Amino acid sequence: MKRIYLAGPEVFLREAIAIAEGKKRICRAHGFEGVFPLDNEVRSAGLSKRDVGVRVSRANEDLMRSCDLLIANMTPFRGPSMDAGTAFEMGFMRALGRIVLGYSNCEESFLERTRRVLGERARLRDDGQIEDEYGMFVEDRGFGDNLMLDGAVLSSGAEVIRRTAPSEALYTGLRAFEECVQEAQKFLGGAPLGTGG
Amino acid sequence: MKRIYLAGPEVFLREAIAIAEGKKRICRAHGFEGVFPLDNEVRSAGLSKRDVGVRVSRANEDLMRSCDLLIANMTPFRGPSMDAGTAFEMGFMRALGRIVLGYSNCEESFLERTRRVLGERARLRDDGQIEDEYGMFVEDRGFGDNLMLDGAVLSSGAEVIRRTAPSEALYTGLRAFEECVQEAQKFLGGAPLGTGG
Repeated sequence: MKRIYLAGPEVFLREAIAIAEGKKRICRAHGFEGVFPLDNEVRSAGLSKRDVGVRVSRANEDLMRSCDLLIANMTPFRGPSMDAGTAFEMGFMRALGRIVLGYSNCEESFLERTRRVLGERARLRDDGQIEDEYGMFVEDRGFGDNLMLDGAVLSSGAEVIRRTAPSEALYTGLRAFEECVQEAQKFLGGAPLGTGG
Repeated sequence: MKRIYLAGPEVFLREAIAIAEGKKRICRAHGFEGVFPLDNEVRSAGLSKRDVGVRVSRANEDLMRSCDLLIANMTPFRGPSMDAGTAFEMGFMRALGRIVLGYSNCEESFLERTRRVLGERARLRDDGQIEDEYGMFVEDRGFGDNLMLDGAVLSSGAEVIRRTAPSEALYTGLRAFEECVQEAQKFLGGAPLGTGG
């Protein structure tokens, strides 16, 4: 069975395991095995918190290598951009030549969102671009995030799926995720709904 | 001559090219060629801004493949974490088996910084962890950012170099960057200062 790496900031939720189970169920229904970052057991006895962190990072890298495709939760996380750890994982899988898919529970474009977060700190350049208080411009490509991220999904032959979820389900809503899993079938095959394991 | 990919959010600065030249000069003085994301010419005539974005992303991926090592500017960018595009590039080079080095012009730990940004939205869990208003905990490993990022540098055999720069030089200060280039010599050789190109 083809394996899908489930990247996203939901690992930080209290109910991370329940969300992981929900995502894995959706994967199974479509003929795939969902693989969650926390699936790897990391031995931590006697290790410093730094060393445990490095072990978790290596374990996640190993898990990614064992997967055929990645679905990233690209929902903005504590700022205008997605979780930086998930961005790292998108780059990792892209370099391995695996398919990189992504969804966001926020429909807004990167430009709209960054401008909203900047508020009065946003400034207009002579050429019409928006820049922040450091003079750094805000990308305006209609994408949901930085062009390396959206670019990886588009270069994989897919689109980033952006659907606004209710705010209480910003990190837990799975509607856009399920659309990504359906999209994965185009790349990996998989069983049609109802016949999968 | 060994090539170093210069990843960081300074591509968004008005003075991006001047910063790139400064970084390349430091690389040359240490016997390396510095390679900046904007070095690739991308033909944009007649293309939509989305299509140009995808071409830039592919051109940067190609540039990375041509480099031996990456130095990431991991300075926090519009939130508690580093620029997500740079995080993507760290993952990309890590998966290719290249050395991933990083620096930050902010010494604060990820925990301290995220707690400061969250302010009154930070909550204490029963187990002593800090979480945000969505119930998502904040990593506490003494790292400067998400464990996948610091983990990639540590697994490369290096340390993330964190040095607080004056706020007006938050994205332009090159002291920590220069320490990274010195560190690169441990991995790639290169000429001692004064004898390089």
